[in-house]
Parts: sequence; structure tokens; C-alpha cells
Amino acid sequence: MEHFADRLASSVQRCGNPVLVGLDPRTENLPEGLLPDGGTSAPLEQLAAAYRAFCQGVIDVVAPLVAAVKPQAAFFEQLGPAGMQALRDVIRHAAERRLLVILDGKRNDIGSTAQAYAEAYLGPGQASAWGADALTVSPYLGDDSLEPFVQVATDRGAGLFVLVKTSNPGSRRFQDLEFGGQALYRHVGGMVEQLAQRTHGSSGYGAVGAVVGATHPEQLLELRAAMPGTWFLVPGFGAQGGTARDVAGAFDPRGLGAIVNNSRGIIFAYERAPYRQRFGNAQWQRAVEAATLDMIAQLRSDTPAGRLATGGSASEGRP
Amino acid sequence: MEHFADRLASSVQRCGNPVLVGLDPRTENLPEGLLPDGGTSAPLEQLAAAYRAFCQGVIDVVAPLVAAVKPQAAFFEQLGPAGMQALRDVIRHAAERRLLVILDGKRNDIGSTAQAYAEAYLGPGQASAWGADALTVSPYLGDDSLEPFVQVATDRGAGLFVLVKTSNPGSRRFQDLEFGGQALYRHVGGMVEQLAQRTHGSSGYGAVGAVVGATHPEQLLELRAAMPGTWFLVPGFGAQGGTARDVAGAFDPRGLGAIVNNSRGIIFAYERAPYRQRFGNAQWQRAVEAATLDMIAQLRSDTPAGRLATGGSASEGRP
Repeated sequence: MEHFADRLASSVQRCGNPVLVGLDPRTENLPEGLLPDGGTSAPLEQLAAAYRAFCQGVIDVVAPLVAAVKPQAAFFEQLGPAGMQALRDVIRHAAERRLLVILDGKRNDIGSTAQAYAEAYLGPGQASAWGADALTVSPYLGDDSLEPFVQVATDRGAGLFVLVKTSNPGSRRFQDLEFGGQALYRHVGGMVEQLAQRTHGSSGYGAVGAVVGATHPEQLLELRAAMPGTWFLVPGFGAQGGTARDVAGAFDPRGLGAIVNNSRGIIFAYERAPYRQRFGNAQWQRAVEAATLDMIAQLRSDTPAGRLATGGSASEGRP
Repeated sequence: MEHFADRLASSVQRCGNPVLVGLDPRTENLPEGLLPDGGTSAPLEQLAAAYRAFCQGVIDVVAPLVAAVKPQAAFFEQLGPAGMQALRDVIRHAAERRLLVILDGKRNDIGSTAQAYAEAYLGPGQASAWGADALTVSPYLGDDSLEPFVQVATDRGAGLFVLVKTSNPGSRRFQDLEFGGQALYRHVGGMVEQLAQRTHGSSGYGAVGAVVGATHPEQLLELRAAMPGTWFLVPGFGAQGGTARDVAGAFDPRGLGAIVNNSRGIIFAYERAPYRQRFGNAQWQRAVEAATLDMIAQLRSDTPAGRLATGGSASEGRP
């Protein structure tokens, strides 16, 4: 399997945009036709079937348009074992449609336990139990806790995104504490850059990337300069307030080096203006498509992503 | 549902010891009679069935002896959706035998995603999809990331154990960085103590506890003094090198305030001296029992846990 960052860079170039669609299924937001009869109180197995159908419906719309999707493990875990089966099916569905899958699980542990997480999740198809291309991981346990993840990722052409500076307001509490004149997130970022350089592919980026939130634009710029070999996964665009201008600093001059996540702003676009008026509940997939195309246009207009060639797939997908 | 720390303190007192049995099923270590025909290459569903049988077999032995078990989510996740079904069954089996269940998943996220994890895992029986009494969580994302977990835990009489100072050597990399004269782990510990005091029960301990490794005895003492309202989950005893003397500092004068984890040293005792010689493969459950009783004896002898009344259940369990 080819190097993860090289595969990601190729896909971003092929699509002509750095949009990452976050699969955050929530019973309260499912379009009417998909919610089971019992509504949000239906048995977990029925809710899991609804999540599967909804996410597959999103995937079918965005697969021609974007490089990757990011299923959020927590929402599937919330539905118990049936939810986990739905997650596996959703990952498979995305892979069949040539989307890269970055599982957002923020997993972390030490030694053989970290090894187990890594072997569980990393590697598409039959390479792992869950078949993801990449996994988000948390760094608090320290450098030896990440090592098993790095080993498995590089062996299998998979990737990691290590939490560095996250989008929530409370991220300041620990991530901004200063040691020796440098914030904790800079120390973590330094470790991640070392790992990225150690695992670099021909794209210039490592198999190890970083999660850097859109809600802290100055720190995003600072980290991009400090971490030239590290691909950024950027949450916080849209619903959390981040704009295309806020994320512009995440990219390199070629328009590579970052993927920008949008979950509810895309998948539940039918619930918000202007898509609610244009499409509504029954055409929720058209709303997904429109919101995705609008985000692509914004990023191409206001960030270096505009320098990506106009994607072949992106053109084919346009109505 | 009664307050989690109060339930934990009661169980520790009833059993007369603070042993926590870690359920870390590994195909390479399963007793011969339990491994499927294909060995470690058997289909995931068969391995999951073996994990279920093994863990239930451990539970049946230790349920009369100890207060709680700690299933390690990663090993079940490694077996895909079938592994997650096995995890659910194992948690149910433990609960039926009156063991408290602390799921070791080191979950973490923000906002509604943290809420989803909390609702997924916290609360025994039908209160949540997974039915655990408590969950380990990671603090890197900051204080607002823990708030949803704290709310759900207190609503449901469940508990949390926040990573503070972990047992792995690489924990130094970030946890020991000093900010304003205090290491990061002290900053995290301070936040956890505030949460513990906010959520305290009649036992004097909060629904929010801390993970503090056995491998750093001086720091364990320091944290016990700094965090009087916080129950400690102490990993690293046995296989990672921690001894009863190392963990003595984790307890309060009554012998409460800490539970000490042992996974492979108990569940795979049949593989090591002296149990290998005494019991061997076919009597692996007797080895589990003997190792548990030996650990109980060590902790009662060398720590304030000796001040716990001799447990009624503990006496009944002795051969």
C-alpha cells in the first residue's frame, strides 16, 4: 500500500480541493425518511441501521467531489455493538467509492495496548479489522505511546493525526501552558514534526499528521511554519466559526498540506439556510452536494487551495 | 443509582482489598483449551468468542474476591465488531456477578462528541449502551472536554478516571514539563481534584478519579497529598514493575482512596512462576484465583489496605 500522505496528496490534487466530510450521524438531525418509527427512542439496532443508511447516502453524494471522509467513532459507539457494525459498514462503503477514511477516535494508550489500537484500525481493506486509512490519536501519554501507532502506520501505508492545538475554547487550559517559553502545543507539535520527517513520503509530508483547529488562526500559521513536513487536519470550519480565511494559513504554496473538516455544515445542510429553503428534508442529499460545492468554492477562492488544478472528479460531480 | 465512589468504597470495604482485575485478553496468551482451531489466525468472530469465554471465566473466579474489573477496550476493538459484541457481553457478565466495571478506553473529545462518549459508556445496566460503571478519559483537550463526561457521570451514578500521571517511561515527555514551577501532571491533577470536590459523595471521594501509575512512587505520594478528594486508579503493579510498597502512598489512612490494577499478572498467571508449576494450562482459573489472593495478601500486608476489615466475600472465596 502506497504511503498515506502521498495517497492523500494525490486525492486532494485529483479532486482539486481539500474538503474533508465529517460523518457525525445524530438521531436528532436525521432526515425524516431515515428515522425509524420509534424516533430517537427506537432500539439501538434500528438507529444503527439509520446511521448506516444516512452515512452511505452522504458518501454516495460526496465520493465524486472530495478526497476523504472522517467518521466520528463516538456517535457509532453511542449505539452499542450494532453501532460498531454500522461503523464498519460505513468505512467499507467509503472505501469502495475510493474515498480515504480517517477515523476520528482520538485513541491513545501505551505499549501492547497502543499496538492493539493501531492494529485494529490502521490499514484499508483487509489490512485491519476496521479498514481505515488513518486514525486520530491523542498525545498526553507521551512519545512511547505513539511509537506503536507510528510503526503500524508506516508498515501498512496508513496515517495518523495527532492532536496538537484543538478547536475548543477549553483547549487553552493545558495546550497553552508555557514551558521554557513555549506552549505545550508547540512541544507536542515539535514531536509530531519529528515523527513526520521520520516517516516522510515523496509528497514531502509524513505518515504522521496533526490536528490543528480552525478557531485559532494565528496559531495555525505559527504551526504551519514550524511543521513543514506535517499534514494538518483542520476541524472547526463552519459550525464552530472557522472561515476559509481562518484556515488559509494551514496550506503550503501548492495548496497541499491541509484538509479542512466540515461535519454538520455539510451532512445536515438541509437544516440550515440557504439549503433549507432550496432543498428541505426530502432532498437532503442535494443539500449535501450543494454545501460541499460551496465549501469547495470558498476554499479555492480564499486559500492557497485555489492553486490546485481544477479536479477532474470535481468537474464531473457538478450538476 | 448510588454515587459511584460511594459504591466503590463500599465494595472495597466489603471485599477487604483494593484489587482491580484488568481484563486484557490476548490471543497469544489464551489457555490452550480456549483458543480456536485456527489459533491466532482464526476468524475474528471465533477469536471474539474465545475472548468472551476467557473473560467470563476470569470474572467467575474473581467475582467473590474483588470489587471491580477493568476491561481494556483496545483488545476487543482489535477484533472488529464481533469484538465489541464480546465486550458488551463481558461487561454484562461482570455486572451480573456484582462486580463494578471500569472500562479502560481513555476516551476524549469535545462538545456533543464528548457527550456521545459519555452517554455511550456511563451507567450500569440499561442506563447506557455499554453499561459500565466508570470510564477512563484523557485530559489533553482541556476542561470543557471533560464537562460533558462529568455531567453524565453524576446524573447516572457513574464515575470517571482522568489520566494524570501514567505508568509508561515516555510519560515524562509532556506530563513532567514544568509550567510556572509545577509539572503538567500537577496542573491536570489540580483540575481533577476540583472536579472531585464538586462531585463528592458521602465517602469523601468524587465521581471523578485519577489514573496515577505505580511506577512513580514519589509522584504518587505527592499527588495523594495534593488530591485528597480524588480516588486513584493505579496501573503498573506487577508486570510493569510496581510493588505493593510502591503503591502504599496511594491510599488514605483507612485503606480507601485507591484501586490497584493487575492484568496479565492475574489473568495469565498460569504462564508464570510460581503458578505455572502449581497449576499450568488446564487449571488456569485456579492460577487466577491464587494470583488474586496473593496480591490481596501483599496489599494488605504492605499498604494501608491492611486496615480494611477482612472482607466477608474474601474469606468465602479462599480455598
